[in-house]
Amino acid sequence: MLKVGIIGAGRIGKVHCESIMNYVKNATVKAVADPFLSDETIEWAKGLGINEFTKDYHDILNDKEIDAVLICSSTDTHSQISLEAIAAGKHIFCEKPIDHDVNKILEVKKALDENSNIKYQVGFNRRFDHNFAAAQKAVADGQIGDLDILKVCSRDPGAPPVEYVKVSGGIFLDMTIHDFDMVRFMSGAEVEEVFAYGAVRVDPAIGEAGDIDTAVISMKLSNGAIAVIDNSREASYGYDQRVEAFGRKGQVSISNDSESTAVISDATGVHGEKPLYFFLQRYMQAYVSEISEFIDCVVNDKPVKVGLDCGLQPVLIGIAAKKSLETGIPVKVADIAAEYGL
Amino acid sequence: MLKVGIIGAGRIGKVHCESIMNYVKNATVKAVADPFLSDETIEWAKGLGINEFTKDYHDILNDKEIDAVLICSSTDTHSQISLEAIAAGKHIFCEKPIDHDVNKILEVKKALDENSNIKYQVGFNRRFDHNFAAAQKAVADGQIGDLDILKVCSRDPGAPPVEYVKVSGGIFLDMTIHDFDMVRFMSGAEVEEVFAYGAVRVDPAIGEAGDIDTAVISMKLSNGAIAVIDNSREASYGYDQRVEAFGRKGQVSISNDSESTAVISDATGVHGEKPLYFFLQRYMQAYVSEISEFIDCVVNDKPVKVGLDCGLQPVLIGIAAKKSLETGIPVKVADIAAEYGL
Amino acid sequence: MLKVGIIGAGRIGKVHCESIMNYVKNATVKAVADPFLSDETIEWAKGLGINEFTKDYHDILNDKEIDAVLICSSTDTHSQISLEAIAAGKHIFCEKPIDHDVNKILEVKKALDENSNIKYQVGFNRRFDHNFAAAQKAVADGQIGDLDILKVCSRDPGAPPVEYVKVSGGIFLDMTIHDFDMVRFMSGAEVEEVFAYGAVRVDPAIGEAGDIDTAVISMKLSNGAIAVIDNSREASYGYDQRVEAFGRKGQVSISNDSESTAVISDATGVHGEKPLYFFLQRYMQAYVSEISEFIDCVVNDKPVKVGLDCGLQPVLIGIAAKKSLETGIPVKVADIAAEYGL
Amino acid sequence: MLKVGIIGAGRIGKVHCESIMNYVKNATVKAVADPFLSDETIEWAKGLGINEFTKDYHDILNDKEIDAVLICSSTDTHSQISLEAIAAGKHIFCEKPIDHDVNKILEVKKALDENSNIKYQVGFNRRFDHNFAAAQKAVADGQIGDLDILKVCSRDPGAPPVEYVKVSGGIFLDMTIHDFDMVRFMSGAEVEEVFAYGAVRVDPAIGEAGDIDTAVISMKLSNGAIAVIDNSREASYGYDQRVEAFGRKGQVSISNDSESTAVISDATGVHGEKPLYFFLQRYMQAYVSEISEFIDCVVNDKPVKVGLDCGLQPVLIGIAAKKSLETGIPVKVADIAAEYGL
Repeated sequence: MLKVGIIGAGRIGKVHCESIMNYVKNATVKAVADPFLSDETIEWAKGLGINEFTKDYHDILNDKEIDAVLICSSTDTHSQISLEAIAAGKHIFCEKPIDHDVNKILEVKKALDENSNIKYQVGFNRRFDHNFAAAQKAVADGQIGDLDILKVCSRDPGAPPVEYVKVSGGIFLDMTIHDFDMVRFMSGAEVEEVFAYGAVRVDPAIGEAGDIDTAVISMKLSNGAIAVIDNSREASYGYDQRVEAFGRKGQVSISNDSESTAVISDATGVHGEKPLYFFLQRYMQAYVSEISEFIDCVVNDKPVKVGLDCGLQPVLIGIAAKKSLETGIPVKVADIAAEYGL
Repeated sequence: MLKVGIIGAGRIGKVHCESIMNYVKNATVKAVADPFLSDETIEWAKGLGINEFTKDYHDILNDKEIDAVLICSSTDTHSQISLEAIAAGKHIFCEKPIDHDVNKILEVKKALDENSNIKYQVGFNRRFDHNFAAAQKAVADGQIGDLDILKVCSRDPGAPPVEYVKVSGGIFLDMTIHDFDMVRFMSGAEVEEVFAYGAVRVDPAIGEAGDIDTAVISMKLSNGAIAVIDNSREASYGYDQRVEAFGRKGQVSISNDSESTAVISDATGVHGEKPLYFFLQRYMQAYVSEISEFIDCVVNDKPVKVGLDCGLQPVLIGIAAKKSLETGIPVKVADIAAEYGL
Repeated sequence: MLKVGIIGAGRIGKVHCESIMNYVKNATVKAVADPFLSDETIEWAKGLGINEFTKDYHDILNDKEIDAVLICSSTDTHSQISLEAIAAGKHIFCEKPIDHDVNKILEVKKALDENSNIKYQVGFNRRFDHNFAAAQKAVADGQIGDLDILKVCSRDPGAPPVEYVKVSGGIFLDMTIHDFDMVRFMSGAEVEEVFAYGAVRVDPAIGEAGDIDTAVISMKLSNGAIAVIDNSREASYGYDQRVEAFGRKGQVSISNDSESTAVISDATGVHGEKPLYFFLQRYMQAYVSEISEFIDCVVNDKPVKVGLDCGLQPVLIGIAAKKSLETGIPVKVADIAAEYGL
Repeated sequence: MLKVGIIGAGRIGKVHCESIMNYVKNATVKAVADPFLSDETIEWAKGLGINEFTKDYHDILNDKEIDAVLICSSTDTHSQISLEAIAAGKHIFCEKPIDHDVNKILEVKKALDENSNIKYQVGFNRRFDHNFAAAQKAVADGQIGDLDILKVCSRDPGAPPVEYVKVSGGIFLDMTIHDFDMVRFMSGAEVEEVFAYGAVRVDPAIGEAGDIDTAVISMKLSNGAIAVIDNSREASYGYDQRVEAFGRKGQVSISNDSESTAVISDATGVHGEKPLYFFLQRYMQAYVSEISEFIDCVVNDKPVKVGLDCGLQPVLIGIAAKKSLETGIPVKVADIAAEYGL
């Protein structure tokens, strides 16, 4: 039975904790660390059968019985805790993004290169979603032939608070980063060049904070295909997450999940349900799958599929997109990488 | 924390056991009873955190700490164990059907009438399915106006073994019983008269065993609506479970769930996935919901929604359908009920 | 160029007239007869390039240049004009029903048997609808294997005036007759036995007029399959015309046509258009196809696909359904046929 | 009765000719001109009731009885014949594009400015398609609120011959020109800036001819929205023509038409039909509607909706897209316009 420590018991930390305790047979959560550990959190954890709590994550890193940690703390601590966890010899599941600063990601990369026995998985949950996974499988299996055009549509049900926007690193690193990962996942290729159009349509305050809330980003891929992402911080009808891959032999597309398949026909039309509202509903299955996969890699010493490079590349692409938006011309991802000696 | 005992650790018993241990916060499984208790079952239960096992369900009935039992044993034991559990003062969740013999169901009814404090829920899981529940809510909320026509389509992915068919009580009591329950659930009305057409289309051996494998059953309901069920023991494309309710103001219908929403367009057409294969996939969410509901009724002393009468009526309708098939004319459910003094 | 005469220039007569003048290359309408011939009708016909008009259809029957007639007059005149047209040696396209009185249909049958060179097509347009035809082809081509269950859903957008209902022959001969034809068309089999449930749900005045407005009719077919039709005189969402055929290898189903494929997603849900409102919209393509087929059969001496028997059988089935509703028990179509010496 | 002359009796000329003769009540085709006038064409026209033929379109321009002409000749003659027809005082329906050379379009514009009584409609048929028109209406009616993102998907079922590609003006002026028109139509706004990615994926010979066959073009619009078009010269599954408009209040999208709504479920999945194969099928209704609209504008002296500017703007956008592809940076449409003194 693999013993796991959870670092950060916020919303996503709790999701992973419940996944392990309820669905993962060969792992258990031994301890939970959170600097703001509340009675409520302790009660919640006890209900799951967890009995060790601490405000200091070093207690988890120092626990010899714990083999793996889940880093679910605030983004600005991910890279530092990653480094310490590597030093402590723990396997690591780290929520995305590893960091907004490429140099800090590269420090983690260096540490991992020196500790090749350590499993390091980045939390790009969408790869484990049943819909995206089915579409990716169709592409990977050759069902649509060589990929020509890849379209990712990603719209949130509501914009985050402006205070959050200000420290988010901008839409490309905060929101589109998932979509850049999807482009890589779906295409099995790298993004070579990015061109971004952006606009402020949802909330002027987002513009005043120096960010945009609406974007169309086109990309040249290493396999010759062209990709395009469209983003909005607010879709009136909820969480819109789709992909369409077009190739020589055909096309695969996915639509949104909804609470039920009920359709009502009446004098005003034919009415179906809106998509599931937000990521905790839409991607619950995906969260369970990604944690199960991580535990499986650790227990059975399998290579991690969503490793550090999967955490690094979308950040480089995001920086390129940001630069494209600022300069008004396309930007090569290799040029961004070169700035960091890559 | 409500303590529950599981009687019968077969397929469905295990499903409920996992639901309670993984999803139901205010209940736990204290003990599992199964006459064929295997090492595998014990290991599975221990993995969930259960530590008491017995081959004799009386151990569970005699355990003062256990407040509620789940009867998941073979159908022919449901009514007898129900009676003993009532005598032992346990709340009861009983898998459907309570019995094929109406008189035995009536014995349970009598015992419950004398022990009105006991909660008794029958395992019609489909009422808790997200699709059927959404359709029922649309009807109950008046979104389609007065109900005129109700259509239930229910087709299994594969016929059971003929040996099973022989002891199943016939298709109407074994398979259609769920659909009769759906008619009552969706319409909020009682079935007054039944007319059944049946055929042997899937497997001649089913006919030789005295049963049918294909049926269309039409019904007059107490609210003036007309209902029709169509059944097949084998649909090549999997588990087909739909309902369509038509009323003065509109129509609500549901379609099947599938593994993903992926659609592939190619030179041969536009291709989607088949429905989820069988009930353990399609109705997993429903199983969790029905057990959660049962626990909630026990813990918070709420009236059970799917009680004994919900177990009784479909049996009476099923017997009426069987008689209609044999006689070739419609049969009133009240006439069947009268045979049992109802 | 085949010369055609139109007898009856009401709504459907005009539809056929326009079809021939606009779409059928090898035929033209030479003359139009209508007892209530209005200036408006004459102007309309002249716009199409037609220049002969009469109030007396005998002028058309006597015109040696006219090879074929379309009988689009009121129902009660269909059989009489058919007989006269046969005597005049004209090929005939006759709107459905040929007559409500089986004996009169049989007179036409006798006349046709004695004039085997005459083409006689009955106006069951739905067989020529792109959706129904595609479903029928899938069944006929064996794509769903042996047929087990056939479901026809047929609901009108609004009930006819009660005055019409009183002389309509009842819902089974007026409305369901199309669906009985669909059962024969889709299954390639004959209806052997009928059982009907009916109700008055739409308008009490229909009930007072001795008719019903809502029905579920189940049928045993000669190929062993079971069929079921559900009818309503009024669907709030418009004209609902669907079929679902289930067989050993699969299922084929069709959905309604709408004006466009536009779907709007907003804060209240996902909204599509209602079905096309009524038969002149939904079946316009079918009307053109059926007339083209008739002209082709005449010009190229091909056997008519929808001949007198296709006009006769649904009337027999309708009479059986009516009797079933009155007696409350299933009725064999052969017993109805026997009453007429068939 | 408006008298019309057809100049050019190729594929599209014949389509328009049939539309007028069969569907347009208040117009008739008096004469057909085609330099390659064949016996077959004459026979076809006579079948429609047309009796005047010529190889010289000047015969039509000189016919005082003819009020309007349809210019359906080869693209390189459109602007010249337009000028002559304006001089002859005819109303004009001109197939797209007016010309690939902006200066020639401007000559026509100048002539029209000097003859403001003349109606001049450009053949952007897609605006009259039931699906696109429904989507545009939803946007124009404010059903989706302010437009944020507009996505146009346009893929042909098969690439044209390389010989055609060489003289086509390139994909942006030959194929995407329709999609640029759709962007203007759907958004009600002008394209301000264009950025294009292109690739050769379908046929290397197209690349050798100096063109591309796959493209993603993003655009900034004058109303602040962002638009993106994706193009392929060959979709294995047929003609793919969709649009999706996303705004503050919601989204409207359209899907493709197919021959029927039949769906077959079998052991391999759930299968629907491919889209209608090519423009003559998909857009037949649109062709009738656009000609009806033109005739209506002429007869009732209404302003033309798809006038010269609708023919000019997409050419300017196409030239900008071409320049963007060549230079690798975004291009302002105003800069292209300025090159022509606009």
